[in-house]
Amino acid sequence: MPHSLLDHIRKFISLTPELEAQIPEYFERLEVGKKEVLLPANTICNRLFFVEKGCVHAFFTDRQGVEKSVQFALENWWISDYQAFYKKKMTDSTIQAVEDSVVWSISKERYDALLVEHPATESYFRKMYEIGYGAVITRIKYLFTYSKEEVFYNFSEQFPYFVQRVPQYILATYLGLTPEYLSKLRAKRRS
Amino acid sequence: MPHSLLDHIRKFISLTPELEAQIPEYFERLEVGKKEVLLPANTICNRLFFVEKGCVHAFFTDRQGVEKSVQFALENWWISDYQAFYKKKMTDSTIQAVEDSVVWSISKERYDALLVEHPATESYFRKMYEIGYGAVITRIKYLFTYSKEEVFYNFSEQFPYFVQRVPQYILATYLGLTPEYLSKLRAKRRS
Repeated sequence: MPHSLLDHIRKFISLTPELEAQIPEYFERLEVGKKEVLLPANTICNRLFFVEKGCVHAFFTDRQGVEKSVQFALENWWISDYQAFYKKKMTDSTIQAVEDSVVWSISKERYDALLVEHPATESYFRKMYEIGYGAVITRIKYLFTYSKEEVFYNFSEQFPYFVQRVPQYILATYLGLTPEYLSKLRAKRRS
Repeated sequence: MPHSLLDHIRKFISLTPELEAQIPEYFERLEVGKKEVLLPANTICNRLFFVEKGCVHAFFTDRQGVEKSVQFALENWWISDYQAFYKKKMTDSTIQAVEDSVVWSISKERYDALLVEHPATESYFRKMYEIGYGAVITRIKYLFTYSKEEVFYNFSEQFPYFVQRVPQYILATYLGLTPEYLSKLRAKRRS
């Protein structure tokens, strides 16, 4: 039976049949509807999520009451408030499905147990975070280099499938724009 | 003999005497002067650095020719262009000492060998990247939430030692400000 999470892990580390049988036991598979909340803000962040299907984002509410997306996960990517998850602390982010999604969820306790009981998985997560860390630093470089208009155009060229799928108001805040400004840019592009 | 790198690793994983003896052999210890370049831009990023003493930053040159700091490492922190290092690709960042520094340097080949030959180190690097990844996402949240003035004040409150040590023009670009603007803010604060 194909298994998205195992398929993904197998791309980064070799899995024994024993490990393949055991890893899924650490997780819960959730089917969530569009806009359903996986982890609410102002609670202890004790969950890490892997997206099998759909799209999930993490947003916080700024002082003006505007919801701002800081992270996205499409198929085969992980999402959590990593800083809060690492220390099992309160998060100010809400983790929410953007579309109907299928998600593998692991608690902090089970995650810690997985890493201790199956140390081979350390290498997989090391690679996930090494890649994610590098990507976020590149995102900061982009924010510091390009005008708001260029940020949008560059992003659209690099991730066209993403721009198609994600609602405009969410995409705007993720790129540091207002939805109104993004709407103007899109109209300009079509004209 | 105290050993900054081993002391740091020991905070995150347990080390056997055998491992303690072997880890330093994967690294070179470098003493570098202020402004000395550890890794030049437009070369293959095949080095990861741990700062024992001093301060190191990574900067790139934007299209206006302005050097912008994207990362810093004080004592007991790692620095590289992680995205380029992971794939052993060309980097557009220069890694440079901000002060006279003592640095442990590991090549990509030796890093890969260390992780394979001593899998216990996977857990250490997984934790480093998990912490770093979370911290950079928080930095993006700050950039999206606060005014430029607030970014500086928040940063000064959280990392006063850092603001004291790092030259103003470097600190300014790291916070997404111009040196002139930062200079005004500092004057305002003193008055």
